[in-house]
Amino acid sequence: MIRIVIVGFGNVAYHLISAFAKSDAVTVIQVYARNKANLNHLQDHYDVTNEIDKLVDADLYIITVSDNAITEVSLQLNFKSKLVVHTSGTVSMNDLNSNNRRGVFYPLQTFSKLKEVNFSTVPICIEAENTKDHKLLEAIAKSISNQVFEINSTQRKAVHVSAVFVCNFVNHLYKIGNDICNENNIPFDILNPLITETAHKVLTLSPIEAQTGPAIRNDSTTINEHLNFLTNQNQKEIYKILTKSIIDHGKKL
Amino acid sequence: MIRIVIVGFGNVAYHLISAFAKSDAVTVIQVYARNKANLNHLQDHYDVTNEIDKLVDADLYIITVSDNAITEVSLQLNFKSKLVVHTSGTVSMNDLNSNNRRGVFYPLQTFSKLKEVNFSTVPICIEAENTKDHKLLEAIAKSISNQVFEINSTQRKAVHVSAVFVCNFVNHLYKIGNDICNENNIPFDILNPLITETAHKVLTLSPIEAQTGPAIRNDSTTINEHLNFLTNQNQKEIYKILTKSIIDHGKKL
Repeated sequence: MIRIVIVGFGNVAYHLISAFAKSDAVTVIQVYARNKANLNHLQDHYDVTNEIDKLVDADLYIITVSDNAITEVSLQLNFKSKLVVHTSGTVSMNDLNSNNRRGVFYPLQTFSKLKEVNFSTVPICIEAENTKDHKLLEAIAKSISNQVFEINSTQRKAVHVSAVFVCNFVNHLYKIGNDICNENNIPFDILNPLITETAHKVLTLSPIEAQTGPAIRNDSTTINEHLNFLTNQNQKEIYKILTKSIIDHGKKL
Repeated sequence: MIRIVIVGFGNVAYHLISAFAKSDAVTVIQVYARNKANLNHLQDHYDVTNEIDKLVDADLYIITVSDNAITEVSLQLNFKSKLVVHTSGTVSMNDLNSNNRRGVFYPLQTFSKLKEVNFSTVPICIEAENTKDHKLLEAIAKSISNQVFEINSTQRKAVHVSAVFVCNFVNHLYKIGNDICNENNIPFDILNPLITETAHKVLTLSPIEAQTGPAIRNDSTTINEHLNFLTNQNQKEIYKILTKSIIDHGKKL
């Protein structure tokens, strides 16, 4: 069994630990969190600690703390020449302390503690400094997911920026749709089939082929009616900039 | 059988005709289009015409032309006191010529000719001037869909504006994600699981509960790295305005 220590306990760690629990190839032997109280429910099954200098010997240390703490935490590790990876979409592999062998294990998915995730379909982007470590990360990734990609630090940043557009920003547009429905006494779930179909369409059509609506038709009457309908300045601004972007860039060249 | 004439032949008409073909309660007896050549493939199964003054007697006329032509087409109908509806999310019921009994039959979905739609899950928003017509529209809608809503013209406009946010704008964000992937030699389908999960999450969580990413964490380091990474001014502007909106309005009050 490949022995793993998880460092940090946020949404990514929570879902990774669940996924590893189902894997036959790896075992989580310790979990570290600054605030041990967050880990009370894990104490029956895992060795948990809030002391960074008491991490046990392992084949892999996965740092899952927030992006701006990754370098600092990697500098606090009091061992060297071991394999240490982070799970961030943005942070470069080289931002890890070079005392240890470095790598990245980035699961490309949106994680909320309230929603279970089927890890077998989650793309895992891996990167390592040498072939042997790359193979180890690949074996670990394949033990929990069917989609494993070799992605370097520059590409990973591109993947992460794209993910912000297709996930975080998309979800915020759902939030605006929800607000407009609430203000007009319409159940938000009237939009569910549309939300689902919009996502499913781009599995088979390109986004350019899938584009519909007043902007792509350059239907200024409807666009102006919508802008008159919206009273919230923030919603109006977002409507304007995205409509202009569709008109200018939404079609095939 | 309830007899229906379809006036106009765009994406909505195409999918409505397919749905009605499977209904036991209704039959499409005629299809009108200005350009009859578009209807060549329908001629074996339907009476098709390009003469608006030769529409046959029917229980319901569904005007499916573009929004800005609905009133004009309704004025061209050379009969009166019949039930005439349009399929628009934006146009008011009262924009139809009052010579006929008026109504609305608005299927809330994104229709592309290249992608089949399961109409049984498409919400249909209906509106009519009197109870009898309302019941007829309800029966027709229920013969093709399990989700039928009574929605007045003001609410319908709100539904349509919401739909633009959660569908048309969302699809354009997919397009931007696609562009960024292409520029960095990353297959767009690496984002498929994320796109699907983001849509599925809001079926069970509110968009506020589902929000993840650097903006909701107010992670200015990552946000600035992303802005530095983006070279396309349009993408940068959209990134900025949506990030600001999430920071200002993405959380629970």
